[in-house]
Amino acid sequence: MISTKDVAAAWGLVRPHVRRTPVLELATGAFGSTVPLALKLEALQVSGSFKGRGAFHKLLASKVPAAGIVAASGGNHGAAAAYAARALGHKAEIFVPTISSPAKVARLKSYGAVVHQIGAVYAEARAASEKRAAETGALIVPAYEDPVVFAGAGSVALEFAEQAGFDTLLVAVGGGGLIAGCAAAVGEKIKIVAVETEGTPTLHEALKAGKPVDVAISGIAADALGASRIGAPNFEIARKLVRDSVLVNDDAVRAAQRALWDELRVVAEPAGATGLAALICGAYRPVAGEHVATLICGANTDPASVV
Amino acid sequence: MISTKDVAAAWGLVRPHVRRTPVLELATGAFGSTVPLALKLEALQVSGSFKGRGAFHKLLASKVPAAGIVAASGGNHGAAAAYAARALGHKAEIFVPTISSPAKVARLKSYGAVVHQIGAVYAEARAASEKRAAETGALIVPAYEDPVVFAGAGSVALEFAEQAGFDTLLVAVGGGGLIAGCAAAVGEKIKIVAVETEGTPTLHEALKAGKPVDVAISGIAADALGASRIGAPNFEIARKLVRDSVLVNDDAVRAAQRALWDELRVVAEPAGATGLAALICGAYRPVAGEHVATLICGANTDPASVV
Repeated sequence: MISTKDVAAAWGLVRPHVRRTPVLELATGAFGSTVPLALKLEALQVSGSFKGRGAFHKLLASKVPAAGIVAASGGNHGAAAAYAARALGHKAEIFVPTISSPAKVARLKSYGAVVHQIGAVYAEARAASEKRAAETGALIVPAYEDPVVFAGAGSVALEFAEQAGFDTLLVAVGGGGLIAGCAAAVGEKIKIVAVETEGTPTLHEALKAGKPVDVAISGIAADALGASRIGAPNFEIARKLVRDSVLVNDDAVRAAQRALWDELRVVAEPAGATGLAALICGAYRPVAGEHVATLICGANTDPASVV
Repeated sequence: MISTKDVAAAWGLVRPHVRRTPVLELATGAFGSTVPLALKLEALQVSGSFKGRGAFHKLLASKVPAAGIVAASGGNHGAAAAYAARALGHKAEIFVPTISSPAKVARLKSYGAVVHQIGAVYAEARAASEKRAAETGALIVPAYEDPVVFAGAGSVALEFAEQAGFDTLLVAVGGGGLIAGCAAAVGEKIKIVAVETEGTPTLHEALKAGKPVDVAISGIAADALGASRIGAPNFEIARKLVRDSVLVNDDAVRAAQRALWDELRVVAEPAGATGLAALICGAYRPVAGEHVATLICGANTDPASVV
């Protein structure tokens, strides 16, 4: 199980390649909050989400073969892997299902990746990516189920704790990469609260079952938080260090996206607004004097969709 | 003519009411820049633009009568005046031309203002606002031609200089409120460069003529930068302390808006991207080693318009 020390080492490696994203500290009252609130604008990260940190760490910590890297994802992870590969001078092949939007495919290509559209669903694209890696010897960059990847992701929590003081960090969960990294980084000092939508409750159900279990995925955040099962090493950390797990519905996520635009002129994708949604809708209720923080962790969405 | 000291005093007054907006420091290469670049995300300011600072200062530095305040503007200034009035417990009447979009009128009303839609053009709305103020005794909050207003605006430059080190600050100019405030604040230490669109060259033409002159207004930034003449006290400061004045075309502004979204997931209105446009299109060319900064000064736009 990785520790703060591993995340700090990962941060040292990725720091020259990623952005120190800005933090906004808001007084009591913002978004109707009864306590002060710090937001880290991690959607301003390279490639548009926190995933840039993990992808850079995987590539920097690995011996990348001449065949380069492969990744399966039409979303934030694929963009991050393609971005990091280009920046470090490696070939990248990204596998996405045929339903992926032309805009997402275009972004991947703009980062220099070879894009393969294969299969009706993500699982088929992923199987094709693994077959391709076996043929070429390319390095597979997993989306979340890899301590090297999530140690990189966790650097966002160390950076955030340097920039602002807070007691509690609300973290959106999909496959569990971000929360495992954040928990390893600061979970012994800061109360980590997992936030999931009702349609993507992988950690919530795993905590109930005592182990990772398959979950039926649906709803507004399925695109980014829609892993059907939390990663095994991710769950190992989360069960030890995550102190609370709450669910929000899709309307709460939409309301948080709208509030981020109306109050701050910040655009977030649904997953990027999920942590804040828990505070706004009351799924997480801080006590008096508690300083709360959350990550606006991605904005790979059509900006027209937030208003 | 106001000085750094006046801006510092204004900052002291407004600081409890406005946000310390975040700064993003980017390495050489971002947006194709040949030098490091600091961006201050002032669009995250209360009311969605830097205008919040000036409006708060005017209200805090004045004795506001029971009749409250009036302002004429369907744009950022009107929103800022309405926002500040509500926050400080004053009535606000905002006068806008009948062509103002329902979205802008709705935002003004959401801030608690009484909105009067009068006249086909801005000048008629403004005349109506002055007539109304004469009747009721309300305080007029001018959009830019008022040292009290622009001393408040200038606080953004003092704050920025605390957050990042830079040699040069690119500032978009409309009526000249932002640039007069910034020049008064830091113009003796930092090279202030005025950036205007070809369709809104109020300062550029005034510098040529040696005095404020009327300019025909057109193009993408007319909404926010479309004062037809720079303010007199604004010009007095600008002629002494602004070291360069450059123009950009509408395509350069659109390209800067798109680049802000593509590279950073930041939404800016045309005026908010005008400073950066000068760097991207080469209208302003830094020398080797020069650290350049600019303000993303507003985002009161439809987010769908930036992609």
